Amino acid sequence: MKVSAFASQTAKAPLTPFNYNLDAIGVNEVTLQVIACGICHSDVHMMDNDWGIAQFPIVPGHEVVGEVVEVGSAVSHLKKGMRVGVGWQRSACLSCPECLSGKENLCDANEGVIVGHHGGFASHVRVDSRFAFPLPEGIDSLHAGPLMCGGITVFSGLRQAGMTSGQRIGVIGVGGLGHMAVRFAKAMGNSVTAFTTSASKVEELGRMGADEVIVTEGGRLVKKPSKPLDIIISTVTAPLELGAYLEALGADGTLSMVGVGSETVTLPLMSLLGKRRRFMSSPIGGRGEITQMLNIAETFNVKPTIEVFPMAQANEAIDRVRKNTVRYRAVLKV
Amino acid sequence: MKVSAFASQTAKAPLTPFNYNLDAIGVNEVTLQVIACGICHSDVHMMDNDWGIAQFPIVPGHEVVGEVVEVGSAVSHLKKGMRVGVGWQRSACLSCPECLSGKENLCDANEGVIVGHHGGFASHVRVDSRFAFPLPEGIDSLHAGPLMCGGITVFSGLRQAGMTSGQRIGVIGVGGLGHMAVRFAKAMGNSVTAFTTSASKVEELGRMGADEVIVTEGGRLVKKPSKPLDIIISTVTAPLELGAYLEALGADGTLSMVGVGSETVTLPLMSLLGKRRRFMSSPIGGRGEITQMLNIAETFNVKPTIEVFPMAQANEAIDRVRKNTVRYRAVLKV
Repeated sequence: MKVSAFASQTAKAPLTPFNYNLDAIGVNEVTLQVIACGICHSDVHMMDNDWGIAQFPIVPGHEVVGEVVEVGSAVSHLKKGMRVGVGWQRSACLSCPECLSGKENLCDANEGVIVGHHGGFASHVRVDSRFAFPLPEGIDSLHAGPLMCGGITVFSGLRQAGMTSGQRIGVIGVGGLGHMAVRFAKAMGNSVTAFTTSASKVEELGRMGADEVIVTEGGRLVKKPSKPLDIIISTVTAPLELGAYLEALGADGTLSMVGVGSETVTLPLMSLLGKRRRFMSSPIGGRGEITQMLNIAETFNVKPTIEVFPMAQANEAIDRVRKNTVRYRAVLKV
Repeated sequence: MKVSAFASQTAKAPLTPFNYNLDAIGVNEVTLQVIACGICHSDVHMMDNDWGIAQFPIVPGHEVVGEVVEVGSAVSHLKKGMRVGVGWQRSACLSCPECLSGKENLCDANEGVIVGHHGGFASHVRVDSRFAFPLPEGIDSLHAGPLMCGGITVFSGLRQAGMTSGQRIGVIGVGGLGHMAVRFAKAMGNSVTAFTTSASKVEELGRMGADEVIVTEGGRLVKKPSKPLDIIISTVTAPLELGAYLEALGADGTLSMVGVGSETVTLPLMSLLGKRRRFMSSPIGGRGEITQMLNIAETFNVKPTIEVFPMAQANEAIDRVRKNTVRYRAVLKV
C-alpha cells in the first residue's frame, strides 16, 4: 500500500510531502486510514531529535484516529470499517511481567508509533492491532486524538498517583496536557487547583472546572493553595521550585511528573519526610487504563479544547505548537 | 517525683548527671520507671543540636522500655506494673485528619520524647499514655527498645513503600536501622538484597537473612542486584548515587528514604519515568503500625542485635554510636 505523508528529512527541518510503501501486513497488525491526528510536543521533540532516538525521514503524529482498512490474519477483535484511536505506543511484547500486569507502557520492548516507524501525519498508519483502541461512539474523531496520548498521560499520571474522588488535585501548567488533567480531575469528583503562568487563562480555567487558579511566576509558586493538596500533577518541562510544590501537598501527598524535561530534579528531603510525601514520574498508560479513560471521557463528556488545521497546513500547526500558542491542542484533519 | 538522669548541658557536651522534678501528672499521661533505653543516631543529632531544635539541658533517649509507675486520671488502658515501650513520639493532637487516620506520626502537633521534654537516659520518663505501647511477652526488655524507634522506622518505611511478601527488597546501609530492615523483610517472606560499605559484614548479613549482599564503594553502587528490586529502603545519611539505585528498581519500584541527612537530593528524572518508579521519605510510624510491628516482631522472632551498656556508661555508648562501631544497636540498661 502506498502512503502519502508529511516528513522531516533531517533534524529541525520543516515537513515536506513524503511517500512510502507499507510492507506486507503482519499477522497481528492493522492498517488505519487516518481521519485526524493530534499534535503533541513529543512530535516536535522527535522532529528536532531532542532525545537522540529519531530516525529520518520522520513522519510525526501519534494521536491518531483512523478507520481500519486492513487487518492481519491473526486479528479477530478489529474489523475493517471500525474507528480506532492510537497513541504513543504501537506495540509491546505482551509476555513480560509488566505486559501481563496491564502495564504495557512499562514494557522494555515497547515500540513508539513514531520511533523507527512512520506516524499519523499521513494517509495511513500501520500498528500492532493490540494497540489500536475502538473509540466509543460518543467521542467524535477530531476530539479523540488528543485523548490517546495527552489524555491518557494525565489520566494515568493522576490514577497512578492515587486519584480517586473527593480529593484536592493540583495541575501545574495548563496546555495540551494540563487542560485535560483539569477536566478529568473535575469530572471524576475532585476539587481542582490549577497553576499557570498565564493570567489570561484564569477565567477560562474556571469554566473548565478549576476551583482555584494560582498564577505563578515561572517555576516559582508565589502563593500557596488555600488547602493542602492530595496530588499535584506537573505537565510542564520548565524547571520548577519543586520544594514549594511539595510543601503544597498534605500528608501522604504525591507529586506526579508527566512533563519531563530537565535531566535532573533537586528535592529538599525534609519536604518529603515530615508529611511522608512522594515523588514519581509516569509515562502514558497501559491498555486497560486507556480503555477506562475512553469510557470515562465518553460518560463524563471530557474532551480537549482543540484547534483544527487541515493536514496540508501541518507546518503551520507545528509552528503554533512550538510557540505554545495553541488553545489547547492542535489537531490535523485529513 | 524526682528523676535522676544524664544530660548534655550544651551542644556537643558529654553527658553528666542531672536531676529534675516531674510536674504533677496530666490526666492522659503516664510515668515510666526506665528498664532499658536504646540509643539512636537521632539522640546524637539532638545532643549536637544538628537540627536546631534541641533545648538544653537535654536528656537523650527515645527507645524506652519501662514499667508504668504512675497513671493520669483519664488513663484506663494502662495500669501500674505494666511493661511498655515508647519511641520517638510522645504525643499528638489525636483529632486532626492525620491522627484520625492512624497517621499520628504525620500530625502537625506531634511531640518528640526528647524535643522540649526529657528522655530515657534516666530513672523515669513521662509521656502521653496513648504513645506508650504494652510490650508482647515474647519480646524481652533489652531488645524491645530499638524496635520502638529504629524498628518502626524501617517497618513503616517498607510498608508505606508497599512491602507485602514475595517481593525483592533492597536495604541500603546495615547499621542499627538497616539490620532490622533485613530481618523484618526476610521474616515477612521477601528476598533481601543488602547494600553495605563493609565487606566485613557480608557473612553476618547472610546469617541475618540477606539473600544477596552487594558491597558498595561509599555511595557508589558498583554492581547491580541480580534481579530488579521492588523496594529499596535507604537507612543511611551519607550521599548516595540515587540514579543508580533507582535503576536497580523494577517497574513501579519505590525508593524509600528513612535515613535523611543531606538537605537536598538530586534525581535523574528519566530513571523515574520509564519504569514509573517512585521516591519517598517516611518518618517513624503511626500507632496502629507500631502495634502491628510489635506483634510481628514477637510472632516471627524479629529482634535487633544489641550491645548492652550500663546506664552509667552512657558516654562510652554514645561515643561508640558516634563512631559507628556498635553491632548493631546500643542499649542502656538501668
